[in-house]
Parts: sequence; structure tokens; C-alpha cells
Amino acid sequence: MIAAGTTGVVVQQIERADQSIIEGLAKCGVATVHEAQGRKGLLADYMRPIYAGSRIAASAVTILAPPCDNWMIHVAIEQLQLGDILVLGTITPSNAGYFGDLLASSAKARGCKGLIIDAGVRDVADLTEMGFPVWSKAVFAQGTIKETLGSVNIPVVCADQLINPGDIIVADDDGVCVVCREEAADVLEKAQAREANETAKRVRFEAGELGLDIYEMRGRLAEKGLTYV
Amino acid sequence: MIAAGTTGVVVQQIERADQSIIEGLAKCGVATVHEAQGRKGLLADYMRPIYAGSRIAASAVTILAPPCDNWMIHVAIEQLQLGDILVLGTITPSNAGYFGDLLASSAKARGCKGLIIDAGVRDVADLTEMGFPVWSKAVFAQGTIKETLGSVNIPVVCADQLINPGDIIVADDDGVCVVCREEAADVLEKAQAREANETAKRVRFEAGELGLDIYEMRGRLAEKGLTYV
Amino acid sequence: MIAAGTTGVVVQQIERADQSIIEGLAKCGVATVHEAQGRKGLLADYMRPIYAGSRIAASAVTILAPPCDNWMIHVAIEQLQLGDILVLGTITPSNAGYFGDLLASSAKARGCKGLIIDAGVRDVADLTEMGFPVWSKAVFAQGTIKETLGSVNIPVVCADQLINPGDIIVADDDGVCVVCREEAADVLEKAQAREANETAKRVRFEAGELGLDIYEMRGRLAEKGLTYV
Amino acid sequence: MIAAGTTGVVVQQIERADQSIIEGLAKCGVATVHEAQGRKGLLADYMRPIYAGSRIAASAVTILAPPCDNWMIHVAIEQLQLGDILVLGTITPSNAGYFGDLLASSAKARGCKGLIIDAGVRDVADLTEMGFPVWSKAVFAQGTIKETLGSVNIPVVCADQLINPGDIIVADDDGVCVVCREEAADVLEKAQAREANETAKRVRFEAGELGLDIYEMRGRLAEKGLTYV
Amino acid sequence: MIAAGTTGVVVQQIERADQSIIEGLAKCGVATVHEAQGRKGLLADYMRPIYAGSRIAASAVTILAPPCDNWMIHVAIEQLQLGDILVLGTITPSNAGYFGDLLASSAKARGCKGLIIDAGVRDVADLTEMGFPVWSKAVFAQGTIKETLGSVNIPVVCADQLINPGDIIVADDDGVCVVCREEAADVLEKAQAREANETAKRVRFEAGELGLDIYEMRGRLAEKGLTYV
Amino acid sequence: MIAAGTTGVVVQQIERADQSIIEGLAKCGVATVHEAQGRKGLLADYMRPIYAGSRIAASAVTILAPPCDNWMIHVAIEQLQLGDILVLGTITPSNAGYFGDLLASSAKARGCKGLIIDAGVRDVADLTEMGFPVWSKAVFAQGTIKETLGSVNIPVVCADQLINPGDIIVADDDGVCVVCREEAADVLEKAQAREANETAKRVRFEAGELGLDIYEMRGRLAEKGLTYV
Repeated sequence: MIAAGTTGVVVQQIERADQSIIEGLAKCGVATVHEAQGRKGLLADYMRPIYAGSRIAASAVTILAPPCDNWMIHVAIEQLQLGDILVLGTITPSNAGYFGDLLASSAKARGCKGLIIDAGVRDVADLTEMGFPVWSKAVFAQGTIKETLGSVNIPVVCADQLINPGDIIVADDDGVCVVCREEAADVLEKAQAREANETAKRVRFEAGELGLDIYEMRGRLAEKGLTYV
Repeated sequence: MIAAGTTGVVVQQIERADQSIIEGLAKCGVATVHEAQGRKGLLADYMRPIYAGSRIAASAVTILAPPCDNWMIHVAIEQLQLGDILVLGTITPSNAGYFGDLLASSAKARGCKGLIIDAGVRDVADLTEMGFPVWSKAVFAQGTIKETLGSVNIPVVCADQLINPGDIIVADDDGVCVVCREEAADVLEKAQAREANETAKRVRFEAGELGLDIYEMRGRLAEKGLTYV
Repeated sequence: MIAAGTTGVVVQQIERADQSIIEGLAKCGVATVHEAQGRKGLLADYMRPIYAGSRIAASAVTILAPPCDNWMIHVAIEQLQLGDILVLGTITPSNAGYFGDLLASSAKARGCKGLIIDAGVRDVADLTEMGFPVWSKAVFAQGTIKETLGSVNIPVVCADQLINPGDIIVADDDGVCVVCREEAADVLEKAQAREANETAKRVRFEAGELGLDIYEMRGRLAEKGLTYV
Repeated sequence: MIAAGTTGVVVQQIERADQSIIEGLAKCGVATVHEAQGRKGLLADYMRPIYAGSRIAASAVTILAPPCDNWMIHVAIEQLQLGDILVLGTITPSNAGYFGDLLASSAKARGCKGLIIDAGVRDVADLTEMGFPVWSKAVFAQGTIKETLGSVNIPVVCADQLINPGDIIVADDDGVCVVCREEAADVLEKAQAREANETAKRVRFEAGELGLDIYEMRGRLAEKGLTYV
Repeated sequence: MIAAGTTGVVVQQIERADQSIIEGLAKCGVATVHEAQGRKGLLADYMRPIYAGSRIAASAVTILAPPCDNWMIHVAIEQLQLGDILVLGTITPSNAGYFGDLLASSAKARGCKGLIIDAGVRDVADLTEMGFPVWSKAVFAQGTIKETLGSVNIPVVCADQLINPGDIIVADDDGVCVVCREEAADVLEKAQAREANETAKRVRFEAGELGLDIYEMRGRLAEKGLTYV
Repeated sequence: MIAAGTTGVVVQQIERADQSIIEGLAKCGVATVHEAQGRKGLLADYMRPIYAGSRIAASAVTILAPPCDNWMIHVAIEQLQLGDILVLGTITPSNAGYFGDLLASSAKARGCKGLIIDAGVRDVADLTEMGFPVWSKAVFAQGTIKETLGSVNIPVVCADQLINPGDIIVADDDGVCVVCREEAADVLEKAQAREANETAKRVRFEAGELGLDIYEMRGRLAEKGLTYV
């Protein structure tokens, strides 16, 4: 395993989860997956989609990028396989626009599903028209350079979370969550169980039943001393 | 009156304004109501709608919530009457996702019109599809627990404003404004007068007349020393 | 030239760029124009459009506004010519709602294309319906007063950039960029060359070619020591 | 009781807590008082002292201030009694410098112990030299005007908390906490008990005993499933 | 005059104000100078000193710096004269540590009084020991490169204000203010008058007189409708 | 290796670097170490010391903490060895005051050198008096609970960086930097070489030599097109 923070390395072989698991996680969505895996793996709340309505899951091809330098994205695109997603963390915080429509065209041609970037993105009107979803810290046109090496497919910190290459990224309008590849099958099972349970509960809620009764909370609330006046 | 900050109390009987007043305020919208009541009552500008296009007014059922704990929302839903809105303030600042689609289903089944939350919300794609509007500080999937008591229908501070149970909340794409229940009839009258005046003015503006002339500002500007070069 | 920061002055005659240049810049968009002029002129990334999908360019009529005081906007509207855009900088940072639908009606009637405001805007639902685009720091209904003089058509600092009256503003979903009037023809030429080049590149990217090959990066990456493992 | 948000009113008679209670709370400090009263009453963490080392408690004389307008501070100073503290909340968020050395000289001459201001302060070098402590949201020299009425000694929202005139403010290097006047005696008792308990614990901690043993946590941790590897 | 934003230029001859004026402004301090010149020229409130207790004024040698690139500081140091101050604005927002103890040693050897930087600074313990004051947006050790040209002694935007080379910078614990060189003599006169007036007022305040009486505010407050209850 | 994000685990045996290396790194300080290891490892710039003047290095005992829950700190203190430092990352962002004087007394008694916490700290006046240095995101008295398990001595993300147990933390007034244990000897060598080089340079700078000459920059600047006017 290459250490996080290492520069100048491209890992070409990474493990990926089964496509069926990835698709299953996509259906569950961020909130459910986050809950199912014990409330871990949620990226920071400043990671917002450039347009509403996407819900995807994909295998992470990770990028560690130097300050204001997007060279490594070109290197990473060669490593993409159908169904992957690019995940970019920076060596130091930046809002610069590391990614735009040309890179999206290139990534899309390689089968890439989207981008998670702890920095800025530009050409968002074009990206929206292309249907290439991006979750980013900022929308900002500031250009970047191609001078310094970072790395591809090493562990990166992105928006408060450690992401290993091949981890599964789940992203929708609620934000972004990472699932460890080794735990993905187990998390999917729990997420689907949670979904089934929620579907049943939703029917009862829609019929006007109260959570106080469905979850039998009244006793415990009374014990804690809740007083009705 | 229960003091703000008190925990462990649910007030079951609250006064509400007349439905006709509430509906009138909804039509006027946030900016007009804010002006009509002397520019007070505006919640902080970080309170943003999860989707564009809602304009509502409703009676506040207030919730004081402990850190990362959404138990009191279940308690509050039982207190909802048709046409109310949930208003949640937290004991300490939080971006956690206190509210999602199941709670929205429950609240909606009780006739609730929406949610004002000085914290995070999740399942926003579902809430958008349901047409359940939320104004929040954050969109974030972070889960919450059910361990500690807060209160329902006591005065709460929410996004810089004190909100009493039964106060009228007006919310649209501009943000959120609170109107004291006791002042609501008077505020509505002033807001409608303001609207009528603005409608007349708008016709003149659209015809190309200048504010300088409509409001007779030229003299006062000259007095203050404005110089044209 | 009136010094930035001067109050109490309205400059009535300003130079504007040729309409053909302005239209050309609009077609290129913010990211391309920003690159074409050597990556300068970009306003801060907190300047966001109130609705998605606008792409405009226009000559700046500048406003220096006192704290929480929007009087000068009325003065500025008289100075507008067909195809201009209002650009408002404040003497001290503010999120107050300096601008709403009545001012938009007035500005639109004078041929104004939109507003760039380093402060707040309100009535955004109305502005969206009118198709009057605004890029702002905040959406906030907080009212302003009309007590103190600022200036019109002097150099102003707006969201990190100096903007002279008559400079060309380019704005789209990526944000806002300013082009010096004197450099506009040259910038347009470079921007169009860049666009032509990008169009050619896009075809190759869409066909699956890699940036590594199109830009012949492999040699330089190897020289820098990039290692594939 | 005058409603929060009301403008144009000065309440001249307010109740204050016993001086002995206030002095007792000062000795306990913010963290202990906050805990003793059930973890409520803490002002936002952006409220920082202009210099380190103060620890005070005092009765609140409250001020509701219009945007960028410090007129009401002069009005409030007349209402000060020996041992009071000024507490200023604004009608809309502001970083302007509402308070400086002249106002501090005036307040100090009336026996005022300091200022809590949800806005900016200036002349901080002078205030430090005078030993006049201030907890503020910002240090900023931006001047304010004297044009619009606010109120004095009504309930105000200041940095996320509702503060009633006569409430006790406790402030030190950790920040600011408010104690309801009616609860002050009870809170003091609990705070002092907490202090006594902490002093005993501190001796044991300093001797190298572990919290795991002092608080008998090992069993409950094991029950929750904590695993040592 | 070179346009703001131009890169690749070093202006070697700049006008400076008389040393006596600069020294006079230093004595008055930021808040007084800001008021004396009509409340303009104040840099953003995030500009904080790295240590408390400095009060200086000096002629600005300006630097426009590319993203994460501090090369131009070396170029600027050659342009320093005894009593100057370095003022650095960036082409795009950055918190990187452009300046540390070696550059400070070099600048100090040329007679430089300090640094105003709309970015980060590092080695602050050394700078404090050297007595080299810095007002910055951040303290951050992030290294910068030397690859791209900016400019020296052209107009720069720094923390919301336009600063021309040779303008006078006044800085103390309240923050930073810029005075136009051409207006400096006039501003000094007004600032000193203001100081004299404040000294007289301070005596009266310290003796317990109220601002309500000193400034004869009671009548105007009553006219506006202020009510004592 | 336990995966980052795992809860419920305490690793009791961790490798530590040689004390001589740790002491060497402490002498070099954050900026030098950060540069020496290729500009990686710097924690976010919001991590500030609670008092100025500390410069330390120590082996990290890491803590993963649930939202608003400081239970794991007690668990971690038992794992401390003489010369260690506590490093706390949270599962979700929080400003709550996880740590105060009692925990500091306990940690200090076990030989702990300080705390790095991506959250809040309280009792800062006591900690300052004790000489127990803390670098934190916030100073905030908000209390925490003891309900949920986190982990001790697993890899944690803290303020943008991945920190493994036993990594060396270097912290001073510039902020905080992490050095991988395996690379520490090499980084120390480079840092000391850098220091020696800087000392030599400092003498020349203090004598008035310019960086332009010391680093022979004039030729390269001219090549890039720098123009003196």
C-alpha cells in the first residue's frame, strides 16, 4: 500500500467491487448507506452537486493534486475503467477550477460516471448539458497549471474522509459517502434491509400513525421526564 | 410562558393566527412582510430553500433540539395542526441531518406545510418530489440520535430570531421571516398597502420613469452634494 | 479619472466597447475569457447566479454604495444605456438586499442586462420570472436606506476585482469575469482562438484519445519522475 | 414584558440578581456554569475576548441595535448601574465597529464591567490598556451612524442566545454564557458543587489515576463492545 | 499609470508622501484615520496582526502575486526605501504562506516597516521576535513556488481595497486602512482635529457625563419617538 | 492495520520513532519540516494554538470521536506513554468542547505533551496556566457526552490530513504538521540541512544582500519577460 501523501506514483492495478454491489448501493442513496454502515464515511457538507437529480455509485480512481495544478487528472483518466468515478483531493486547500468540459469529455469517453473534487470546477453549464455530474467544494473558473507531480490511485483525504482507490463512492443530492470496498457487500445488505424497513414505516406514517407509537417512544420519553403542559 | 432554553416540556395548547391572515401574508412574501413590519424578523441569510419556487406562510410549532438529537421532532409532530410549520432551533450549532423523508411523510400526513431548521436536512431529492419545502442551514446526511430531551412549543432562537409558538412564518426563495402572532393583522394590512403601492410604482418603472423622479430624489441628492461630471 | 473610494460623484460620460466585441465575449463565456486574458479578472467564487442558464456580456455602469444604503442605484439607472450592466461594490462588506424587483423593472426598462452585486439581492423569484439575471454574494431580504451618497461610474472594487466604468463584464454559471475595455478586442481574439482550439480538441477527446497523448505529456511526466507501479 | 424585536423603547427598571450570586458565578467560569445549568445558554463560539485573562459576571443591560447604527449605546449607558455589563444584539448581522474607547470611557465611568457585542468593536489597543473587556464577533474599525431607533432593556437575541435584561452574563477566555436571573441562585449552587467535585477529581488525576477507573467506565465500555487489540 | 491586474511589470519610481505626514497618521491610528477620511479605505476585517501592540504608518510598495507563487516579493524588496511597507494582493484568493523569516530579514535590512498580505504568512514566532509586524488573512506554513510573473508597484486590490503604490498604509490592532497619497495631508489635518476633539470629550466621559448630554441627543431621540417605560 | 473509520477498537501496541528524531524535528519547527518533506502533511490553517510560544514534537496517540462524545479520550489516556501527544479527529465536523482541564491533568500526569483536536477545547485559561498546549479548530465550552464508541490508535483524518498512530506531530505558532514515522529520520536530515542553509542565507539577507542576487533570479526573471519601467 502506498502511503497517503506520496507524490509521483501511479498505481495501475486496483481492486474494484462487483458491479452488482455498486448498483445496489446507488439505489439506496447516500443517507441510507451512511446509516447502514454505522454513520461513517460522509464527506463534508460543503460538497454540493453542480445540478440536482443525480444518484450514482462508482469505484473510486483517486487523485492527489498539488496546489493549483491539475496535471494528474490527465494521468488519472488513462487509469479509468467503465463505471469508475474520479475522486480528487488536494495537497493544500484550493478553490481553483481544476476540471472543465474538455476533461469531462475525455473522462466520459473512458466510461467515467462523474467527479468528486475537494476544490473547484468550471464549465458547469456544459457539464450539466453533457449530464456529467460533479460534486465539488466550489464553482470557480480559476485556471490551474501543469508543473508538479501528484499521484493516482493512492489513498487520499477528500473533504474530511480517507478514500482508498477502489472504494465505492455513493453520491446524490444529499452529498457524498464513501464505502470501503471490503465492507461493501455487507453494507449493501444492511442498506437494503434498512430500505425495506423504511418502506414499511413510510406506509404507516403516510396513514397518519405517529413515530411516538410506531417506535414506542412514549414510555422512554416519560422516564426521561418529558412533561406535557 | 415557558422560558427559552427550558428542556423537557411540551406545550400542547398554543394560540394561532386566523387562517385568512396567514394566507394574506403568504401572498405578500418575505421581502414585503419584512419591510411592512419595520424590517425586523428576518432569519439569517444562510437559511436557504432546498428547492426553488415555494412561497408559504404557516403557524410555528417550535422545537428546541439537543446536539445531534432529533427525538423531539417526533414529539412535535403530534402537536401539529393542519396548516402548521415545524421550526427547529438547536441548543448548540449543528449541521447534522435531523430531518428526512420519513419524518416528512409523518408531518405531511398531519397537515404540516414545511420545515424551518437551523441545522441540516437530508433526503432532499425525496422531499422535493413530495413537494415538502424545507429552509435549512445545510443539506447533510449525518445521522442523529434519540437520547436527550429538548422541548416543543416554547420560545426558540432559530437563525438569529426569537420565534414563539404560534408566530407566523413566511418563507419563499428570498428566505424566511417571522411575524409575531399579536402583530400579524396589523402587519398584513401594512404589507398589502405596500404591495398596492408597489404595483402602481412598477407600472411607472416599466414605462421608463426613473426612481429619481417618482420619489422626487433629485433635490435631496443635490442638497447632500451629489455632483454630476 | 476619479479615484476609487470617492463619494458624491456621478460620471455621465463613459467609454464603452464595441457591441460586436461584447457579443463575442458573451459567446466565449467566463472560463475561456479568463484564460484568454492570462487568468486575471475573475471575481470571487462567492458570486453566484440567482438562477442557472444565463450567459451574458455587457458594459459596466459602476456603483459605489455606502453601508446598507441603496440610494445610488436609482442614480445609476439614469446613466444606463441599452446593453449595460449594473456593477455594485460596497464601502464595507454587507449582505443586505440592496436590489429587488422594482429596481429591476426600472433597470430593464432602460435596457439593462443584469446586475453584479457584492452584497445581497431580494425578490429573486420575481427576478427569475422577469429573466433579469443577477450574480450576488447573498440572497437576503434585509432592507436598505437612502441617506448617504456614494458614487456612480467611478472605479470600484467588487468581489476582489477592480472594475472601471465601461469595462466589459462576462458572466455565466461559472461566475463573473471583468475585461478591461482597452484590452477587449485583443482578449476576444485570443478567446476565439482558444475556443477554436478547444473545439478541435474536444472531438479527439470524445473519440477516446488521451490528454497524455494529445498534449504529448508522457515525456515530461517521466522526466519529473512519475512512476507507474 | 416588551417583545423581542420591538424598537423605540427604553425600559428603565429592571430586576438584577444579588451581587453575591453574580460574584459566585464569576468564580466558577463559563464552562462550569454552562454544565451546571444543563448545558444551555452558551453564546456562539465566534464570540472571542479582545484580550486574554478576563473572567467576569455581571447583570445584562441589553441593546437592540439597527444596522450600522450605534445610537442606542448612548441611551443604554444612562441605564447602567454599578456592576452591569452591556449586551448588544443587532437587527441584522453586522461586523461594523459599534463601540470604541470613548463609549468605553463613558460606560466605565458608570461602573460598567464590559461589553458583549454580536458585531464589531474598535480601539481595542485602548480598551486593553483601560482593562475594559469585550467579547465580540469581530474587531473592525468600520464607523456607524446615529439615525435609527433600537431599544434598551428588552429581550435580545445575541450570538444564538436569548438574553433578557437583568440576566447574568458570565464571560472568560472560553467565551460567554447567559444565566436566567430567576435560575441564578440554583445554578450557582450546582456550579459550586460541580467545582468542589472537580477539585477532588483533579487531585486524583494529577496523581495518575485514570478516568476509566475514577468514573468506573471499563464495564460499560466492554458492554458496548470496545475491543482491545 | 499601469492598469491593475497587469503582470510582468516593475515600476521603479513611485511618489511617496512626506515622512512627517506619515508619522502623523501613525499616531492617529486606524479608527481615527478611517473616520477622518469619510469612512473609506478600511481593509477587510479578516486582516489581523500576527501579534498585538503595533501601530505603524508607511508608504506602500505593492505586489501583485500569482497563485501560490511568491517570486515577486524578492523583486519588490529591491524597490523598498527606508520606511516603506510591503502590500501584497493575489491574483486569486490564497491562504498559502508567501512570506517568512528570511524574506523578513531581507526586507528589514532594506528599512521595511512590515507587511500587509491578503494571504498567509509563516514563521510568525520568528517574526514576532524580530519585531516585524504583519497583518494577514491567515497564518499558514504552506510553501509557495517561483514560476510565474506578477508585478510590483502597480495598483492592487488587497482585502477589498484598491491600493496604489505610494499610498499610505496605517495599521494597528484594529486592522488596516489605506490613505490616498494625494489626500494624505488633508486627512492628517482632519484626523488630528478629530483626536483633539476626542481628547476633550474623553475627559468629560471619564467624569461621568453622558453622550446623551454631551452630544445633545435627547431632543432628536424624542422626536424619533423614543419612549421610556 | 485497522481501517480508518472503524469504531470500537483500541490498539495497544504502536510503534514510535526514536526520541532523538522527535526532538530534532521539534527544533526545526513546522515550516521547515513541511518544506523538508516535500510540502506535505500540513494540517488545515484553522488549527490554531490556544496560546503563543509553544514548539513541540511528539508521537501521535490517535482518537476517532463520535459526534459531541468525548468518551474515547479517557480510553486514549491509558494508552499514552511519556512524550506522546493526543490527536483527535471526529466522525462528523464539530466545534464542541471535547477537552478541558481535568482531562489535561490526567493526560499530563501520564507524560502527554499536548493535544491536536479538530474540534473545540475549553478551560483554555487553565490549560494556559498549566502550560498544556492545544491546537484546535475552536475554543468553545459546549459540553459533550459519553454514549458511543469511537476508536483509539487507528488511522484518523484530522484537519485535512491522515494521521497514523505513532506518526510524529510537529506543532508551533505556525500550526501543525504530521511526519510519517517511517520517513521521520530522512525528513529530519533534510530539515536540518535546510536549517543550516537558511542560517547561512539569513546572514547575507541581514547584511542587505538581495534574494535576486543570492538566488541568481535576475536572468530567469528577464527570460520570463519581467520589465522594469
